Amino acid sequence: MSLPKKDLFDLPAGLIYLDGNSLGPLPKGVPEKVQAVVAEEWGAALIRGWNACGWMEQPARVGDRVARLIGAPKGSVVMGDTLSIKVFQALSAALAMRPDRKVILSDTGNFPTDLYMAEGLIRLKDAGYELRTVAPNEVSGAITGEVAAVLLTEVDYRTGRKHDMGAITRIAQDAGAVMIWDLAHSAGALEVDLAGSGCEFAVGCTYKYLNGGPGAPAFIYVRPDLTDQAEPALAGWLGHSAPFAFEPSYTPAPSIERMRVGTPPVLQMSALEEALRLWDDVDMAEIRAASLELSELFIREVEARCPELTLVSPREGALRGSQVSFAFEHGYAAMQALIERGVIGDFRAPNVMRFGFTPLYLDATDVMAAVDILARVLTDRLWDDPAYRKTNRVT
Amino acid sequence: MSLPKKDLFDLPAGLIYLDGNSLGPLPKGVPEKVQAVVAEEWGAALIRGWNACGWMEQPARVGDRVARLIGAPKGSVVMGDTLSIKVFQALSAALAMRPDRKVILSDTGNFPTDLYMAEGLIRLKDAGYELRTVAPNEVSGAITGEVAAVLLTEVDYRTGRKHDMGAITRIAQDAGAVMIWDLAHSAGALEVDLAGSGCEFAVGCTYKYLNGGPGAPAFIYVRPDLTDQAEPALAGWLGHSAPFAFEPSYTPAPSIERMRVGTPPVLQMSALEEALRLWDDVDMAEIRAASLELSELFIREVEARCPELTLVSPREGALRGSQVSFAFEHGYAAMQALIERGVIGDFRAPNVMRFGFTPLYLDATDVMAAVDILARVLTDRLWDDPAYRKTNRVT
Repeated sequence: MSLPKKDLFDLPAGLIYLDGNSLGPLPKGVPEKVQAVVAEEWGAALIRGWNACGWMEQPARVGDRVARLIGAPKGSVVMGDTLSIKVFQALSAALAMRPDRKVILSDTGNFPTDLYMAEGLIRLKDAGYELRTVAPNEVSGAITGEVAAVLLTEVDYRTGRKHDMGAITRIAQDAGAVMIWDLAHSAGALEVDLAGSGCEFAVGCTYKYLNGGPGAPAFIYVRPDLTDQAEPALAGWLGHSAPFAFEPSYTPAPSIERMRVGTPPVLQMSALEEALRLWDDVDMAEIRAASLELSELFIREVEARCPELTLVSPREGALRGSQVSFAFEHGYAAMQALIERGVIGDFRAPNVMRFGFTPLYLDATDVMAAVDILARVLTDRLWDDPAYRKTNRVT
Repeated sequence: MSLPKKDLFDLPAGLIYLDGNSLGPLPKGVPEKVQAVVAEEWGAALIRGWNACGWMEQPARVGDRVARLIGAPKGSVVMGDTLSIKVFQALSAALAMRPDRKVILSDTGNFPTDLYMAEGLIRLKDAGYELRTVAPNEVSGAITGEVAAVLLTEVDYRTGRKHDMGAITRIAQDAGAVMIWDLAHSAGALEVDLAGSGCEFAVGCTYKYLNGGPGAPAFIYVRPDLTDQAEPALAGWLGHSAPFAFEPSYTPAPSIERMRVGTPPVLQMSALEEALRLWDDVDMAEIRAASLELSELFIREVEARCPELTLVSPREGALRGSQVSFAFEHGYAAMQALIERGVIGDFRAPNVMRFGFTPLYLDATDVMAAVDILARVLTDRLWDDPAYRKTNRVT
């Protein structure tokens, strides 16, 4: 395919959407699919939908679609719950694999929910575990023999900095630690070679670059040779080897389906399944190349025309995901003003303006137009006006 | 309102739906609502939907609607995840409140996922906990001073037997145990007085009697005076006191929102929110009275005309939820035949035929027609024909 493919999306006219790293836009076909699931499946099939409409198999079927996009084999990925829950599942299973080690290693650039879920698990286990976080560039050196599991998000949600998945996985495994990758900002954004990395677990969400819609289900990957050893801490009935035998005691499914928990969100899963169709003829290498081109154009133009902004993301493309962040003292107000003028990015405290580059629906013309508007926002400096600050709650 | 209110639902013509205890039918208005959320909120508002469309507050807003139906005050219920996850949250918080006790008490009539989640939690904590299950009628006598938490489903999914919520809660609390009620087969089916019962926690699902759609979000209730003590084991970012401060460490929200975990399923939550509107002028006492009338008519007619079937549910209405179950040697085949003839109930191994009575969309004429068809199915005995058995995989 040639990029961009704007006609695959229902994008509001006149809007430049640089926030697909937070919530992807609506793919065409999804409204019709969701409507059919509501009216024809739920409405007409009712309880029969679990078999007749394939709802029961959907988490594994959709998992296979995601697997292809992250370099994982069929049968190694299953969908469900939220990314926070999937982090908990991966981490608890990882700790069970290294009962003699007590340290969970992460970095300060990890998305907070990953760290919070680790803290919650540690409190729950109440057995002397420690969450140790170091700066992103100090991770490799911190992987000692005490470390049970290394839990990292490949691409930093704030800066876009990208870890070297293969290298860190090797270091972790050489030290005897279990490696868990969070692909929240990777899946659909760049080439991921999960199988090649050899990591034990991966998790991710689907409402960002995969355009699954607000609250779309998360995914979890378990390296196929470890499936039988991955102990489900959240031992829900749909992860049971025979859910409809209603046995009194839990026996995990012999497949990735052991990572299922409760009844899957069929409407949400169907929106995602339809959204994933547009990836069928997408080459991730082509997406990555186009993303870097757009990102580099943006960096070059912003640095030339908006000197007030300071690049926070790595300058070298290979070290960056699919977003670019700039620090700016008045970042919050500037982002509000940008959004009012039809350029949507987002803001992360204390001073980071984030811009996501998604070549499926963005091109160089969009990038240039966005920089034009950003430059005008910085010239106008509306936030210098106390009345504007009050109205827009800019402190 | 006067019952039934069939015009509030899109029910397939000619179908008698006695499985609303498993998946409720499609309320009118839901397709339009979901379509609007997909096209106008996700499609047009994009990331702005979290604030502009009220997505972020939706789990608590919808929780308040559910609260009214289960006798809970505003601000004590929040929606999210699946019932299995909510069981895990309630149980882990309950155990943290009784650190010196090691027994979780449940009954053999509990839905398996509740027991499985307890088993998973016990393995995870690895601190000598025990899941003790007794027969449903032996629960009260088994609540000893060793018991940290009593985890029961009010209405038995298989038999419809109903526990006495108030009495058991008092016994549990007198013994110093924490009481957790699973309302999967109660919410929307009968009058529940959570506040009056004084129980510490309750959980439930919304895709059965509340008609929220396949995979609709679950709910959790925490008794308001205990909110601050309820420790979130699944410490996701949306349960944080300041999710968008992106702090490195977790501080639970000072409200019921601490029981939120990850990003909520907006499409699914919106379908549920719309479905809950039809309860606005429903009196649960009226629903309960009508449900008992329908159930008793069904029992009377089946016992008179289908002597092959044996009542498994309690005969006394006050001891029963909103479903009636009969045991029958050829129950699986008979249910298949019933479904083929337009009467939908369901089957639970080894030999239970279940029928749910939902006065919002069922009346006495439906019940009589269902029994007519059941009687014909039992006369025809299609399962005596080896060819039928083979085609229908009846063993």
